[in-house]
Amino acid sequence: MKTYIGVDLGGTNVRVARVDADGNVLEVLKDATEAQKGPKQILDKIEHMIRSLQDHEKCEGIGLGIPGPIDTKAGKIIVSNNLPDLVGYPIADHFKEIFHKPVFMDNDVNVAGLGEAIQGAGKGVEFVYYLTVSTGVGGAPVFQGKVIAGAHGHAGEVGNLILDPNRTARNGLNPGAVENEMSGPALMRKAKEVLGVEIAHAGELFDLAKNGNEQAALLCDRFVEDFSQLLSSIALTCNPDLFVLGGGVMQSSDAFLKQVEARFQEKVFPGMRGTRFVKAALAEPGLVGAAMLPMAQLR
Amino acid sequence: MKTYIGVDLGGTNVRVARVDADGNVLEVLKDATEAQKGPKQILDKIEHMIRSLQDHEKCEGIGLGIPGPIDTKAGKIIVSNNLPDLVGYPIADHFKEIFHKPVFMDNDVNVAGLGEAIQGAGKGVEFVYYLTVSTGVGGAPVFQGKVIAGAHGHAGEVGNLILDPNRTARNGLNPGAVENEMSGPALMRKAKEVLGVEIAHAGELFDLAKNGNEQAALLCDRFVEDFSQLLSSIALTCNPDLFVLGGGVMQSSDAFLKQVEARFQEKVFPGMRGTRFVKAALAEPGLVGAAMLPMAQLR
Repeated sequence: MKTYIGVDLGGTNVRVARVDADGNVLEVLKDATEAQKGPKQILDKIEHMIRSLQDHEKCEGIGLGIPGPIDTKAGKIIVSNNLPDLVGYPIADHFKEIFHKPVFMDNDVNVAGLGEAIQGAGKGVEFVYYLTVSTGVGGAPVFQGKVIAGAHGHAGEVGNLILDPNRTARNGLNPGAVENEMSGPALMRKAKEVLGVEIAHAGELFDLAKNGNEQAALLCDRFVEDFSQLLSSIALTCNPDLFVLGGGVMQSSDAFLKQVEARFQEKVFPGMRGTRFVKAALAEPGLVGAAMLPMAQLR
Repeated sequence: MKTYIGVDLGGTNVRVARVDADGNVLEVLKDATEAQKGPKQILDKIEHMIRSLQDHEKCEGIGLGIPGPIDTKAGKIIVSNNLPDLVGYPIADHFKEIFHKPVFMDNDVNVAGLGEAIQGAGKGVEFVYYLTVSTGVGGAPVFQGKVIAGAHGHAGEVGNLILDPNRTARNGLNPGAVENEMSGPALMRKAKEVLGVEIAHAGELFDLAKNGNEQAALLCDRFVEDFSQLLSSIALTCNPDLFVLGGGVMQSSDAFLKQVEARFQEKVFPGMRGTRFVKAALAEPGLVGAAMLPMAQLR
């Protein structure tokens, strides 16, 4: 079976894996990114890690997933808080020259969406819309096994989509932007504002509601309404077959997913009620998705 | 040059045209639909019209554009107010058997979007999002020369997208749905509610604002804000290169399009500010687009 190399380059850690065409992770290596040591150190480290993988020379290609906006055509980082020294550097070309293999790059959300669409919860489905609800909220449309990056690589950046223009603008985003209403930190902020309690993560808000706290229940109801509105806006815009939902907030999905689905059905046309919703399934969407970048592009 | 047959089947009129691969309309025939005479009469009439076209037997294929939800794979109408007797009838197969040519069907908005994307204002652009603001509001994403119909053929049905969940629900749509806030009839309704005047079409509202009516100016400003919010929601979801804007309300675009663009830029990420907006360009998007259905599918 064909194999591919996936690189998950984060601000803290870098992981490199060999993955087969069925999405099985055959081998993983992990190291600290040490971004402060400069771009050459990071690239040399990744090169060394790839060379340490068994049979690396037999792999079909290399895929890199990196946080933030990526110029997927040029194979460069556009903006990065964690890896500022790598911005604009021709990373894909660098590894192409070293390994004489096709190299592709995309941002971490698109890569996770690709992994879920090809090998995870969306396997075999024509049009998957991946959505992660975590510290941020972002997504990726994956059509026929390829990420639709859009004209400027911003397809799926629904964290800035306006849910209600009358709400407060925060964090440089639009008034009532999805990320300021639905993300983990947003739910923690609302718990503090409305309930006056500091919670450690969004899951505690759903627990409070379950245990009878009425104000928490109202906040959770608002979350369900916001989430279903976001999904309906995406569905009315491009009508995917399936939403794959990932991210930390989805760990509490038992508390809200059925209600979100029911409210979604009320907000779309009857013909769209076959739209399906599933939780993300991969243990390592970032690594598997990165490895699937060359597979998606080469076939 | 290759030629194609386009059929624009409306509730009132049916038009049939021969169109070349550059989008030039070589010949057009028009007749009354006379839907009340039943499905056989309509299909016989279209057959007769196609046979009357010069060199019809040399055409590569036939495309039909029909209002309302279409099952594009089965080649059938799903729902229709104007052509109820044709619902569920295998229209595409019917003409395939008669003419021994490929036959494709899609709804009138998708067909117009395809025409504009391939031969009109979107020619040569990879990812076009067509939007019509008229009696209704609807759209069509056209990627690499093909309409993305979506899982249930509802991609682009943004008339039901929620702009502001606090506004009133009307006409069976969501509260604050695009179509009830931005369509021609919506602007006429608002003019009556707020200004107390009956206007004949949306253009009169923009004229009143231009001539110093402050309440009309406020309504126009709300329209600009709503329009830019809709465009930002679409852009953040799928990030097209270009919006092609058609429909009757766009006849007044001099009064609002520049402002809509400026407000759009405020609502998206800096990297997306290259998104372009143009008015629809084709005199006959429905006919040209219908003829382009076989061209798009056969290449």
